[in-house]
Amino acid sequence: MKACVLHAPKDLRFEEIPDEVLGPGQVRIDVAAGGICGSDMHYYFHGGFGTVRVKQPMILGHEVSGTIAALGSGVSGIEVGQLVAIEPGIACGTCRYCAEGLQNQCLDMRFFGSAMRFPHVQGAFRQSITVDASQAHKVAPTVSAARAAFAEPLAVALHGMTRAGALLGKKVLVTGAGPIGALTVAAARMCGAAEIVAVDVAKAPLAAAAKMGADHAIDASADPDWASRYEASKGTFDVAFEASGNERALRSAIAAVRARGTIVVLGMGGDMTLPMGMVVPKEIELRGSFRFFEEFAWAVDCISSGRIDVLPILTDSIAANDADRAFALASDRSKAMKVHLTF
Amino acid sequence: MKACVLHAPKDLRFEEIPDEVLGPGQVRIDVAAGGICGSDMHYYFHGGFGTVRVKQPMILGHEVSGTIAALGSGVSGIEVGQLVAIEPGIACGTCRYCAEGLQNQCLDMRFFGSAMRFPHVQGAFRQSITVDASQAHKVAPTVSAARAAFAEPLAVALHGMTRAGALLGKKVLVTGAGPIGALTVAAARMCGAAEIVAVDVAKAPLAAAAKMGADHAIDASADPDWASRYEASKGTFDVAFEASGNERALRSAIAAVRARGTIVVLGMGGDMTLPMGMVVPKEIELRGSFRFFEEFAWAVDCISSGRIDVLPILTDSIAANDADRAFALASDRSKAMKVHLTF
Amino acid sequence: MKACVLHAPKDLRFEEIPDEVLGPGQVRIDVAAGGICGSDMHYYFHGGFGTVRVKQPMILGHEVSGTIAALGSGVSGIEVGQLVAIEPGIACGTCRYCAEGLQNQCLDMRFFGSAMRFPHVQGAFRQSITVDASQAHKVAPTVSAARAAFAEPLAVALHGMTRAGALLGKKVLVTGAGPIGALTVAAARMCGAAEIVAVDVAKAPLAAAAKMGADHAIDASADPDWASRYEASKGTFDVAFEASGNERALRSAIAAVRARGTIVVLGMGGDMTLPMGMVVPKEIELRGSFRFFEEFAWAVDCISSGRIDVLPILTDSIAANDADRAFALASDRSKAMKVHLTF
Amino acid sequence: MKACVLHAPKDLRFEEIPDEVLGPGQVRIDVAAGGICGSDMHYYFHGGFGTVRVKQPMILGHEVSGTIAALGSGVSGIEVGQLVAIEPGIACGTCRYCAEGLQNQCLDMRFFGSAMRFPHVQGAFRQSITVDASQAHKVAPTVSAARAAFAEPLAVALHGMTRAGALLGKKVLVTGAGPIGALTVAAARMCGAAEIVAVDVAKAPLAAAAKMGADHAIDASADPDWASRYEASKGTFDVAFEASGNERALRSAIAAVRARGTIVVLGMGGDMTLPMGMVVPKEIELRGSFRFFEEFAWAVDCISSGRIDVLPILTDSIAANDADRAFALASDRSKAMKVHLTF
Repeated sequence: MKACVLHAPKDLRFEEIPDEVLGPGQVRIDVAAGGICGSDMHYYFHGGFGTVRVKQPMILGHEVSGTIAALGSGVSGIEVGQLVAIEPGIACGTCRYCAEGLQNQCLDMRFFGSAMRFPHVQGAFRQSITVDASQAHKVAPTVSAARAAFAEPLAVALHGMTRAGALLGKKVLVTGAGPIGALTVAAARMCGAAEIVAVDVAKAPLAAAAKMGADHAIDASADPDWASRYEASKGTFDVAFEASGNERALRSAIAAVRARGTIVVLGMGGDMTLPMGMVVPKEIELRGSFRFFEEFAWAVDCISSGRIDVLPILTDSIAANDADRAFALASDRSKAMKVHLTF
Repeated sequence: MKACVLHAPKDLRFEEIPDEVLGPGQVRIDVAAGGICGSDMHYYFHGGFGTVRVKQPMILGHEVSGTIAALGSGVSGIEVGQLVAIEPGIACGTCRYCAEGLQNQCLDMRFFGSAMRFPHVQGAFRQSITVDASQAHKVAPTVSAARAAFAEPLAVALHGMTRAGALLGKKVLVTGAGPIGALTVAAARMCGAAEIVAVDVAKAPLAAAAKMGADHAIDASADPDWASRYEASKGTFDVAFEASGNERALRSAIAAVRARGTIVVLGMGGDMTLPMGMVVPKEIELRGSFRFFEEFAWAVDCISSGRIDVLPILTDSIAANDADRAFALASDRSKAMKVHLTF
Repeated sequence: MKACVLHAPKDLRFEEIPDEVLGPGQVRIDVAAGGICGSDMHYYFHGGFGTVRVKQPMILGHEVSGTIAALGSGVSGIEVGQLVAIEPGIACGTCRYCAEGLQNQCLDMRFFGSAMRFPHVQGAFRQSITVDASQAHKVAPTVSAARAAFAEPLAVALHGMTRAGALLGKKVLVTGAGPIGALTVAAARMCGAAEIVAVDVAKAPLAAAAKMGADHAIDASADPDWASRYEASKGTFDVAFEASGNERALRSAIAAVRARGTIVVLGMGGDMTLPMGMVVPKEIELRGSFRFFEEFAWAVDCISSGRIDVLPILTDSIAANDADRAFALASDRSKAMKVHLTF
Repeated sequence: MKACVLHAPKDLRFEEIPDEVLGPGQVRIDVAAGGICGSDMHYYFHGGFGTVRVKQPMILGHEVSGTIAALGSGVSGIEVGQLVAIEPGIACGTCRYCAEGLQNQCLDMRFFGSAMRFPHVQGAFRQSITVDASQAHKVAPTVSAARAAFAEPLAVALHGMTRAGALLGKKVLVTGAGPIGALTVAAARMCGAAEIVAVDVAKAPLAAAAKMGADHAIDASADPDWASRYEASKGTFDVAFEASGNERALRSAIAAVRARGTIVVLGMGGDMTLPMGMVVPKEIELRGSFRFFEEFAWAVDCISSGRIDVLPILTDSIAANDADRAFALASDRSKAMKVHLTF
């Protein structure tokens, strides 16, 4: 079996790895499609982000779908040949946060293709992977492997909805319309938002946001002062989702949300200088949003039922042995949204 | 009648001002005590804060108590001679935020001694003031004018409680133990917090925090790395109240609260550089807290019933004609918590 | 001008009434369509409900649309000829509940065609009506008068959503699939519910529920024990909406929701005998839901944007001078959902 | 070792039972004091409640304290001789509800002295008991065994607070002032409630409620129409706690709470006929409250710190070999609040 193993920045090799044992309660999956995520790109181009660094060869990838190839002993309710979306994380189930039902904050989370722990947890950009049966989520027969591989990023967007609370009747701002931002637009639409404005600095994301349901898409590179149009009466938007990881976007969101408005921050960034002299008197709520838990199953359901069509976000599917080209394309925001590897 | 009129930074004159007309539905109050607040000090020493500048002579003061001197026509339920705490703000009652019950965010708020609007709203450091009868809150006969003048800052602290939600069983951090921080300690204690840790860099606030109910008071000037002791398992405190307006304190709070913890920010500061790479993955909630509304009546009730004793925070009471000395004392954090003017 | 005036049970006369004066800030509207609501039928057939009785001739009707016929002085932003949905209630704006932003609980609410106060507030089943300009909500040019007249019952359903909180990923039960129940199905779908089961005892409502988006429609007359299939693991549904006003339906919902589930009760009924021995240990939340406030504008927006298609619920439109036939049809649950009068 | 074994209604024998094995991770506790709870009385007098019936000999009791007698292998952080409050329930940790952090709803809960499962879970009215070390909660050296045995009922009351949300500034009604109601009064006081009114029909509970902090105690037997005094403006109380299990009390609470008020129902009753014609238009929230989870540790902390003094509720302590007398006294509401057995 071959896998995409990162040895060093820009040294990603599609190379042979040992087979895995199929234990009781597990399933073996022939991986079909795998989406390249922002964190994959950080590992590939920079060897990590912040204090998280790749310190040993690591298989990348955590947004994957595939078909069941074999069932371990005791597994029922699923058949060989079934297409599944693979849940990439396993929470420990016993730590303080798991006991509170906050499994996405698990102190001992094992998440595919993550260098947060050492030894690193190996990822899912590989021809075959063996996982707990509970991680294999069946999709409807009408769903393609490409669509199924969107379950993970859609789950991230849906977790943002959970963090935001009810959106019915709300005016929503989404800053950053890359894959997560564009899926956030679709998710907010599905949750009953009244009006959705998306902001980005590149054409491809702005086009994607419109396709995913944004009422307005603003190009902040051409219209850098856009937030000022939304500042009357202390601000316009009830809820903002910050999905760019960019300080300027977050500052604009702070200016554009109404008093008592909520800003859910999905975008990962480092230190940001924020106008607390506006956050405090407007009584804004800034809420971090990280990964997902129960939302993975919800995302699979949204894709299976067709309530959310993710395909407008897929830019291209490229064979795994041509992964360098795929990563190059994925990093070009002028052209690309989501790029898939195929196995 | 005389009042403390600010003409320019450090040019505060206790000078004659015209009498006011007593209209229907109003009461005239002989002002007894008035607390010097942080915003009063910003006006006095610096002529304002941020974009808010004193542009015309303005009477300072909004934390005042006094006795009813006369009743306008149609006023009932209150007697001449009654000691009252004076609610310093009047919301418009009709704007977008008032219609939602968020009167502290009123778009047309008139708040004593504030240069936020022009012409400025004149303040309450004066021998007599005429207000709507609804602004005069009766206190119990056992309450002194000094205690009654604490209703306003206590209301600010109670609004922080409202913003935080239930505290029963919670571990609470309070950064900054000046008057608002110390009252926040007392309020959190009254709301059932399990454990309260207060942090400051000066002796007087730390002593006050202990008197107001903190279980531990940490001197961050001697122990700058205190937050690291609370970082295990992604953090310790369920709720933090930031009452210092200091970036370093807020960064420490972000490190010390648990994942999914809440930080209520009461302290007014300008731009602050915050570790979003910690806020997002820990899914922290940062909530601004600004002034108060229904909490003013609650504060009066807490003082009247004795459920909160505010007096440990009072450093000194100084006659209004010696206001310069009072402001100098109030600004010396090594010695002073709250300083009152008397009229 | 003629109006549908109720003189006694089943004595509804389409008779001449005096013209109204058009005051400043008001608009005169030529009424186009008016939906017959459950309360209209209670007045018509029984002279009222509970302690609310019709004690003087009263014009019925509060679900109406029409076109602007004349503008009072000072009215701008709307043109003669514009189709509008008419908001049927005016809150006082100053009572305890209005001050808290709970205008639907206004202590001095004036609501069209309601005998709750005396003298009664006259209703809107009339050829022309004069209202405050703020009560006239413009609809999109693509919207018909029939669709616009659904704004009111849809607002009731949307208020149920507000009471329920976020529905993303939730399993939802709707008991009672009359007009409010069927609109509740559509609203829950729009808010991202994962699965919706509707229950009724009549064919027309069950068919309507399916058209409005229910995944399953259960005929409780043929399948009276349906709830038992949902009782495993303490229950299945995260949220139930009770829209029948029927004790048996509410008892079934209590059995079928999961522990910590929520039941929003929209249906008006009298005394009901409930199994508190199940409500308490399952820690169910029962929440009343009454009328609406900001949801009226949201409903207009949902209809204007086409996000909710209300027309599958409209059974027939009948001229106002044939109102007895319209009321007879509206009361026949085997055939009818919503019946409109036209003027 | 001897234990209080119920063989049939009123046939409670203090008889010899076999010793237990002390496993790894467990502690053996010499039981000191055990409170008689309402469910114990239902078993003793009636053989059960509702569908829960005692079908085999069962040791009663779940409100117990004692001293550590022996430590199983691997247990640390606690010493022989330490007084502890014993947490009476063990959640499975893996079911649907445990995974959501709702351990009090565990589908496989093992709770001392409960006939809900068969074979029944044996109780703690015994001279010695062996439990998981995590169930033994240390109390402060100043705390007596009697006080420590109140941790369980206090946890029930604190869970009611969790269900209610923040109480700061709130007007609170408590119907039923038996042990749970009286502890609820104390808990609401500790959580910052502004005003607390307690209602009961017997003198002992009313006296206890006053001692525990109620501002007013109403004798409903002498003043059956008390609720009518609180009905103006749709009602007075923000939050009610129903702790009597009595339909009349719950109906009164529904009348006396304000619109949008919350009623937390702790009292276990059977079918109750409720005025839904009031619950719905007032948009009341009725929330069941059942047992507790994290609140047990909070209760121990409140008792240890002295923030709540439980002793005014203790009527008498009676030796376990005189249990019949203890049950007789406990069931006499005119005289008794909590009665303890000693071992």
